[in-house]
Amino acid sequence: MEEGRQPPTRVMIGVNESTIKGYPNASISSRVAFDWTLTKIVRSNTSGFKLLFLHVQVPDEDGFDDMDSIYASPDDFKSLQHRDNARGIHLLEYFVHRCHEIGVSCEAWIKKGDPKEVICHEVMRVQPDFLVVGSRGLGPFQKVFVGTVSEFCVKHAECPVIAIKRPPGEAPQDPVDD
Amino acid sequence: MEEGRQPPTRVMIGVNESTIKGYPNASISSRVAFDWTLTKIVRSNTSGFKLLFLHVQVPDEDGFDDMDSIYASPDDFKSLQHRDNARGIHLLEYFVHRCHEIGVSCEAWIKKGDPKEVICHEVMRVQPDFLVVGSRGLGPFQKVFVGTVSEFCVKHAECPVIAIKRPPGEAPQDPVDD
Repeated sequence: MEEGRQPPTRVMIGVNESTIKGYPNASISSRVAFDWTLTKIVRSNTSGFKLLFLHVQVPDEDGFDDMDSIYASPDDFKSLQHRDNARGIHLLEYFVHRCHEIGVSCEAWIKKGDPKEVICHEVMRVQPDFLVVGSRGLGPFQKVFVGTVSEFCVKHAECPVIAIKRPPGEAPQDPVDD
Repeated sequence: MEEGRQPPTRVMIGVNESTIKGYPNASISSRVAFDWTLTKIVRSNTSGFKLLFLHVQVPDEDGFDDMDSIYASPDDFKSLQHRDNARGIHLLEYFVHRCHEIGVSCEAWIKKGDPKEVICHEVMRVQPDFLVVGSRGLGPFQKVFVGTVSEFCVKHAECPVIAIKRPPGEAPQDPVDD
């Protein structure tokens, strides 16, 4: 099979921000999933793949924590929206920049909502060949209290899914952090 | 990253025989998983990957169905063993032959036991970069009555796992068949 004749394999990768360092830093498991895809799948075949980065932002229930007033005008909402967009774009910049360096084509976009639901919805819409999601590799006890986006996607996404666990050496002190 | 410097990505693929046609025919989901790996992952980068085919044979509880006598000598067991080995080797031949045609390096071997347990055990022993398993894509009701090797491996194998579903068009009349 010669490259160039076949359309590239389209790999969707779900990425999110670090719970410890916050935006624009990527979470450990996002970086691990991305690096794994480059090292183990793409390898030297940069023209054979296209990476599709999806970042899902969870709508802030009380986005006014850092503001002086609780009286919100429509403009306040707009500026919050802009702030969120800018943060998301900075997160995606890291992944897009690395792809450009290596010479792998990519796309990146932001959606808002429940990450697991949105990822599965975007899989239906975009129809990638497969989906890569990072996983914190939590034990059954830890899972009771936190969302496990990767497990939900493995079960419900309408494309093959590969969950990449954080290596034990890269897990932060609190394994729920990422 | 230049190929040749990096060791190839080692992809383990679990394969089994067709429940309809029997040995040496591969099951639909095994063939689908193999074709998917070639088309979507290996592509033109044949030197970047090594495929590791594992076929697990379920020990026959009553392997004397096709014999005239139930009086078994040690030689009977030996000949059964040889028959099973020969069948397994013919199944693996299909995959190994196709790899040789394409120029992808591969290994293939047979183990006996409970497929889901043996696959996970072999993952620990062989340490592939990831595991590809075919899946019949059964609904929750159908799953109650049959083993779901792929789901077990996704949960328990000590490496990333990607389950490839049979396309609906390739499913046999009885979806439990494969």
